[in-house]
Amino acid sequence: MSKPQLTFWFDFGSTYSFLAAMRIEQLAKDAGVEVTWKPFLLGPVFQSQGLKDSPLNVFPVKGKALIRDAQRIAEDMGIPFKWPDKFPQSSVLAGRVALVGLKEGWGKDFGRDVFSAEYSYGRDISDQNTITEILAKHKVPVEATLTKAQSDEIKSELRDNTADAQKRGFFGAPTFTTASGELFWGNDRLEQALRWAKK
Amino acid sequence: MSKPQLTFWFDFGSTYSFLAAMRIEQLAKDAGVEVTWKPFLLGPVFQSQGLKDSPLNVFPVKGKALIRDAQRIAEDMGIPFKWPDKFPQSSVLAGRVALVGLKEGWGKDFGRDVFSAEYSYGRDISDQNTITEILAKHKVPVEATLTKAQSDEIKSELRDNTADAQKRGFFGAPTFTTASGELFWGNDRLEQALRWAKK
Repeated sequence: MSKPQLTFWFDFGSTYSFLAAMRIEQLAKDAGVEVTWKPFLLGPVFQSQGLKDSPLNVFPVKGKALIRDAQRIAEDMGIPFKWPDKFPQSSVLAGRVALVGLKEGWGKDFGRDVFSAEYSYGRDISDQNTITEILAKHKVPVEATLTKAQSDEIKSELRDNTADAQKRGFFGAPTFTTASGELFWGNDRLEQALRWAKK
Repeated sequence: MSKPQLTFWFDFGSTYSFLAAMRIEQLAKDAGVEVTWKPFLLGPVFQSQGLKDSPLNVFPVKGKALIRDAQRIAEDMGIPFKWPDKFPQSSVLAGRVALVGLKEGWGKDFGRDVFSAEYSYGRDISDQNTITEILAKHKVPVEATLTKAQSDEIKSELRDNTADAQKRGFFGAPTFTTASGELFWGNDRLEQALRWAKK
């Protein structure tokens, strides 16, 4: 019998996607659920709802409190947290490379390292050097992978994921969806989403 | 030795304040924490951040998903959930009456019944009849209480709570604050806030 499925939709620029990425695989394993990672772009999703920037920037009072919130949660999880100088960061390159990696079996490890570079160490993931460094660490051929990441097929896939996210009524990340189409928004709904995946 | 303290800031119009109100006392008791309830008005808080209505109305795609989210949580808690025809509802009267009740020892029971009327049964809590019915149920003298609720002292207290909320950088409800000034936003941060209250 195949395992219950949950889809983890994320944007590499999203703070709470970072927190979810760092814990989802262990929780899913404990729950007996199989997780598919799906990068998409939050920018167009926010724009279609009238937001020209991350809500953390549009509403700075809220933004300040949410940074503190994310920091407290990271501390509880025992992982370093460092707010990057640049926020939000473009996740187009990281998302495309992740799509290649998810087909080739190294996508989740790469994804965790990208999030960690950005939010545990405050680095710039829109900088190609950050990405190539992570690829090299995982012994993935850098040039060939970057070429694949810039192929029409991969570019379309990231665009399609984003269009799909909009069609499904997403408004933030992370978002989790079950096979039955139930939508859960936020790192803090991960446990609940895993329970629903098994219903 | 006095118990660790947590302040529960809420607006009777807020959906997630409802969810928090229905579970905070039991959780606080289990945690050995004493909770002070503080009604305030979200309207001016939203307005000062450029929002002219509840975020659930300003961002309807998000609003729809959050109603479903609240419903799922209420189901998990085993409490009825019915989305009111009118949203958001003015909480001025309910907030003032609650302030009287919190001084006289019946405020928390009254508060839970107001929230339950609104979100478990979809009723209009800005209608004075809803409020007087709840007062009568708790055998609180209706006329005398409404007179106190409209006194300058109580009116000022609700205004002061709201000004205090803005000064502290609130941007939604429920919000929990510890004696050390740590701020937690959202029903889903209640357990964490209780842990921090004891630090």
